Amino acid sequence: MERLEEVLSQIKPLDEKAMQAARLRQDNLTKPRGSLGRLEGLSVRIAGMKGSPRPKLEQKAIIVMAADHGVVAEGVSLYPQEVTRQMVLNFLAGGAGINVLARHVGARVVVVDMGVVGGFEPRPGLICRMIDFGTKNMARGPAMTRQQALEAVEAGIEVVEAEVAKGLDIVGTGDMGIGNTTPSAAICAAITGRPVEEVTGRGTGLEDERLRHKIAVIRRALEVNQPDPNDGLDVLSKVGGFEIGGLAGVILGAVARRIPVVIDGFISGAAALIATRLCPRAKDYLIAGHLSAEPGHRRVLEYLGLEPLLSLGMRLGEGTGAALAMGIAEAAVKVLNEMATFDEAG
Amino acid sequence: MERLEEVLSQIKPLDEKAMQAARLRQDNLTKPRGSLGRLEGLSVRIAGMKGSPRPKLEQKAIIVMAADHGVVAEGVSLYPQEVTRQMVLNFLAGGAGINVLARHVGARVVVVDMGVVGGFEPRPGLICRMIDFGTKNMARGPAMTRQQALEAVEAGIEVVEAEVAKGLDIVGTGDMGIGNTTPSAAICAAITGRPVEEVTGRGTGLEDERLRHKIAVIRRALEVNQPDPNDGLDVLSKVGGFEIGGLAGVILGAVARRIPVVIDGFISGAAALIATRLCPRAKDYLIAGHLSAEPGHRRVLEYLGLEPLLSLGMRLGEGTGAALAMGIAEAAVKVLNEMATFDEAG
Repeated sequence: MERLEEVLSQIKPLDEKAMQAARLRQDNLTKPRGSLGRLEGLSVRIAGMKGSPRPKLEQKAIIVMAADHGVVAEGVSLYPQEVTRQMVLNFLAGGAGINVLARHVGARVVVVDMGVVGGFEPRPGLICRMIDFGTKNMARGPAMTRQQALEAVEAGIEVVEAEVAKGLDIVGTGDMGIGNTTPSAAICAAITGRPVEEVTGRGTGLEDERLRHKIAVIRRALEVNQPDPNDGLDVLSKVGGFEIGGLAGVILGAVARRIPVVIDGFISGAAALIATRLCPRAKDYLIAGHLSAEPGHRRVLEYLGLEPLLSLGMRLGEGTGAALAMGIAEAAVKVLNEMATFDEAG
Repeated sequence: MERLEEVLSQIKPLDEKAMQAARLRQDNLTKPRGSLGRLEGLSVRIAGMKGSPRPKLEQKAIIVMAADHGVVAEGVSLYPQEVTRQMVLNFLAGGAGINVLARHVGARVVVVDMGVVGGFEPRPGLICRMIDFGTKNMARGPAMTRQQALEAVEAGIEVVEAEVAKGLDIVGTGDMGIGNTTPSAAICAAITGRPVEEVTGRGTGLEDERLRHKIAVIRRALEVNQPDPNDGLDVLSKVGGFEIGGLAGVILGAVARRIPVVIDGFISGAAALIATRLCPRAKDYLIAGHLSAEPGHRRVLEYLGLEPLLSLGMRLGEGTGAALAMGIAEAAVKVLNEMATFDEAG
């Protein structure tokens, strides 16, 4: 708990002075005020996050955390659990969607095993922070112990701190875990208070009957476990997942270092709900990358008060939406840094 | 007319075979089908445009065309006409929004004087295709002669063909011209048949009274000139602009070479209306970069049946929205080209 408490205490408000200076420069760039729309406000917010009137977003990483979920025993996913493991290998081989899109925006991909069933032999490029070989089935009891929830969050903090040590200006969150829209929907229902059926979607493509079953499983998990919506670690331990806890840690660790965090889709959104429950102020450092096709994601963003940058109907996860949006965020700060002011242009 | 007719005759349907092959590959990439949302369909469309199942979008250009508008004499813009000229110099110096955003996505900026008041001495980087020193005041008669309209379109064709000769995989349209939301709204009303008040916006920031005045000026221009909505050159000559005609030519010239065109905002949209009136099939090669804050733009896109990739409240023009969207289009084809299929990943 010590490590987490320390990080939470380091999270500071946005730097108002940097934001004022950025706004002043933005308003003097050679264009009508406001004509670059959301890029302008975004650049000012990023100035506030980084505490610099002309922030740079050069060193970028997408941290993709993978784990398995005991609740797949209830038949909530179309894909077999083994796919989590295969996709981790695909990430390491560079052939997955996130590899392509991260490369496109100049971000490195950091792959973390937070608890994939079967585990991995040591492999170059794979960070092992495994908590257990997948969570327990949350439909029958807590997904993990409170101690494991804390360990997952602290692992995420340590992973992002190692990236900060290598050089990091902005980070994106990514996930892989067969079945993980189920705990994400449970977290979303528990924390936002929205009805389960409103925040539960088809994941990788469930048909109507399986969707109804998934909703029933999530309801049961919430009834059996009675997560306390005011206690982020309690929600995480009872109906969460190891990668979700890890990503909550990534968010908190990055925010404590004033690093903007681009949130991907629904699973990353669930992690953001846990993180902001532990520290509400962390929200100021979050950039909603995109609006996922998974219906609960809209509720997560509404609850957090974030407006997504992109809305392209994506629902792959892995950090793919965060990567694309990171390119937009970088464009926003380049406008602030590189456009001429009226004075400079004469 | 010969040059234009030749180009129109060269515009072919999308390549169905390339699209089928691209769809097949897209469906076998290591992700659930459809999970990359609009990126998937976009990559397939681009395959059809380029006639290749695995198209590349490496060489990119934003063609920014500038011209002045006689109708500014009616007080339809907040900025003095001299700003058109100053902004062209800013483009050449590299300090404008489009310079920053084009650089961000790896696109070159091609700056063309289509008819700026006062003209320019020859300058490195500036292509002179000046038709006249600005249009005539369309509130009192035609903005230009039919011959000038044809020359503007043919100039655009030649500009884009010169870029094709240098190497061009995708092109974006950009505009600069104080007052040019006024002819754009007139074109939009004439071609789509929507009421003037619905397609007229505040441009660089008109207040309510000036907006009402601008609407009255556009109504008068349409009454005085009676453009024939079925004749693209007639609409262009009566209520258009030289940069709008030039951009219509860029669109047609690119499409004839199977090069995808990313349309920027409202002024580029007006050019697309002219181009597709001259050749309806050209529409298949258009990618709507973004939804501008200028209200008429939504009507243009509805009329063309295009859905914008981005919606960031931008309204600067210059091709800024097209540049950002070009980065998304490139990401879409990289997914198609670089992601592993299930077979490749084993």
